[in-house]
Amino acid sequence: MALIVQKYGGTSVGNPERIKNVAARVASYRAKGDQVVVVVSAMSGVTDNLIKLAKEIMPLPSEREMDMLLATGEQTTIALTAIALHSIGLQATSLTGAQAGIVTDGVHTKAKIQNITPKQVHQHLDAGNVVIVAGFQGQTQEGQITTLGRGGSDLTAIALAAALKADLCQIYTDVDGVYTADPRIVKTARKLDEISYDEMLELASLGAKVMQSRSVEFAKKFGVIFEVRSSLNDNPGTIVKEETTSMEDVVIRGVSLDKNQAKVTLVGVPDKPGSASVIFKALADATINVDMIVQNISHGSGTPATDLSFTVDKPELLKARKVIDGLKNEVGYREVVADENICKLSIVGVGMRSHSGVAAKMFETLAKEQVNILMISTSEIKISVVAELGKGEQAMRAVHQAFLG
Amino acid sequence: MALIVQKYGGTSVGNPERIKNVAARVASYRAKGDQVVVVVSAMSGVTDNLIKLAKEIMPLPSEREMDMLLATGEQTTIALTAIALHSIGLQATSLTGAQAGIVTDGVHTKAKIQNITPKQVHQHLDAGNVVIVAGFQGQTQEGQITTLGRGGSDLTAIALAAALKADLCQIYTDVDGVYTADPRIVKTARKLDEISYDEMLELASLGAKVMQSRSVEFAKKFGVIFEVRSSLNDNPGTIVKEETTSMEDVVIRGVSLDKNQAKVTLVGVPDKPGSASVIFKALADATINVDMIVQNISHGSGTPATDLSFTVDKPELLKARKVIDGLKNEVGYREVVADENICKLSIVGVGMRSHSGVAAKMFETLAKEQVNILMISTSEIKISVVAELGKGEQAMRAVHQAFLG
Repeated sequence: MALIVQKYGGTSVGNPERIKNVAARVASYRAKGDQVVVVVSAMSGVTDNLIKLAKEIMPLPSEREMDMLLATGEQTTIALTAIALHSIGLQATSLTGAQAGIVTDGVHTKAKIQNITPKQVHQHLDAGNVVIVAGFQGQTQEGQITTLGRGGSDLTAIALAAALKADLCQIYTDVDGVYTADPRIVKTARKLDEISYDEMLELASLGAKVMQSRSVEFAKKFGVIFEVRSSLNDNPGTIVKEETTSMEDVVIRGVSLDKNQAKVTLVGVPDKPGSASVIFKALADATINVDMIVQNISHGSGTPATDLSFTVDKPELLKARKVIDGLKNEVGYREVVADENICKLSIVGVGMRSHSGVAAKMFETLAKEQVNILMISTSEIKISVVAELGKGEQAMRAVHQAFLG
Repeated sequence: MALIVQKYGGTSVGNPERIKNVAARVASYRAKGDQVVVVVSAMSGVTDNLIKLAKEIMPLPSEREMDMLLATGEQTTIALTAIALHSIGLQATSLTGAQAGIVTDGVHTKAKIQNITPKQVHQHLDAGNVVIVAGFQGQTQEGQITTLGRGGSDLTAIALAAALKADLCQIYTDVDGVYTADPRIVKTARKLDEISYDEMLELASLGAKVMQSRSVEFAKKFGVIFEVRSSLNDNPGTIVKEETTSMEDVVIRGVSLDKNQAKVTLVGVPDKPGSASVIFKALADATINVDMIVQNISHGSGTPATDLSFTVDKPELLKARKVIDGLKNEVGYREVVADENICKLSIVGVGMRSHSGVAAKMFETLAKEQVNILMISTSEIKISVVAELGKGEQAMRAVHQAFLG
């Protein structure tokens, strides 16, 4: 008999039929004698509708009231899920985030979980119930309703699994698990049986849509082993856990491609201290998220000057250009070149630490494919390159072939 | 500076535009320096949609989970109403029933308010906020979410007004107030300036749709004076309060017509003790709500026997017939006659107590109109007659003319 925390996202509970499917899955675990805690999101579309309604009244509504409003989405789902479990003869009780003892700080719309006292969860489990907990939400010490921000339901599940010392945490989604690459682009991509927290974190930050970084960080911090798997079938998913020695045998865990980036280059930045600081402070003040940064001495004639390049999300390019244009006099660069026609290709793997020649092999593979590398950035377990957008998918397939077959 | 509790029903908050209208009205009271507590219902249609969703999953869903589900309706409205107040520059905070300190018993879907400790309401009022409270809902001592059943938002408003010792409680609805008769039937019907709790209670039980009896009873018990008025205009409404001496000067406060009744007559019930008890216990066991009951000795030949008539809501007639048919042997009546083609006409007024001849005048008026009276039932401040359905509206106009001009 195990204690299992299962999380179902908005698509998995998108209508009454799907909620019944969730109930059937829960029943199959109960039949084996397991105790089950179910964490659910709002039904798909519900949160967006509520946001739309609020913005019809006021373009920038109060964050406290948005939390009050959005928390109803998950509350609706927990009640319907409990009813679906009753309809197939299972005992089940729903709990809001507050009732489940999820205490957060008071930063509305992106609250952090401070602690969990799942007294009611234990009571209802002990009484033989499946307990359904509203994801994404909590309550401050003072009784204010809060929400946890994007990916909040995953966080609820992982934090509850930690607090309950659950034997297993399953994150049900609409994909089978974590793949070596996007299977829509790379036909030979394989589902991974396991992946380390750090690799998962790199993939998350590289645009893999499976999970938000903060949930993975939380799981890593509290050592919660979780499984990403599909709510549409019974296939085993991908186990996410602390790195093991055997993981290092695999050089590269996965390849990811981010086509949503744009590149900005400041040409001829005078080589004096503080230029980079001025530029990136101005971008940060404008809440523009900068990803890669590369600087090189440019060997032109005259005074020493550098070229400075960085990437931002495409939708923020215009805003970034405006900020940079405003710095022309202060920084004294010669010109700005913006390029939307790029992509970022990355390889991730903890095996990189103990294997040499990984970067060389990647660059060689790209050279063979006539892919011109515009920027390079590396971390301990990741190598990213920026290349021409049109060659991105071809490059991804070649790199996947070279490292993962 | 007064403290005002205002309640807005589902139609008054049915869409973002109407919610903005509510905000504008609240603002006009704030501008006068009043403190305002707003109680709101779910947006019209929302509760029905949630019920439909639940019944798609299970025909008879758990009452605890229905409360969890339906409570989201009002929670949505309070957030949107707070946002609407912010949008016109007012400070406002929303509170769920639980946060407003509304403690109920644990009878899900029809909980009773046990007490109110409106600590948070006071705090937010003192800080200069309009406080918006979710109607219809509360929380048990143990933290379970409950709902108060039909008309629950009115009850929330009146109970809050009592707990806060409010100077005024306004129930905003889609009619201008309480009328001497339904203006759609009686063109000369007038809006009443005031009405006593008891008269209002009789009218509520007679099918006047303005308010549920329990809210009026609660107001009477705690002496909460309230005003029923329209959210569509600025006309003063009807004040509902304890009877005053001057109220007795008016013989009849209003006339009501209920066209939703059906009559069942058991002919030739042997005149022995216990027959009525058997009949009405069986009907009660089948949860059939019996309204009027009239019994008369029938002067036929043979053994002494009586005719026993009662009325039920039309949709329950079939069910009632089945129950009565099942009692044929036990009770030993001769035959059953059911009549759907009837209506109930009532006159209500505390002045009846001190004025004689009221019943006589009513019967005389009906006789002049050639309206045959099938049943009569009276209380201290009410006279009801059952007549042929087709003559109902004509009879109502005549009686209104006779007593109210």
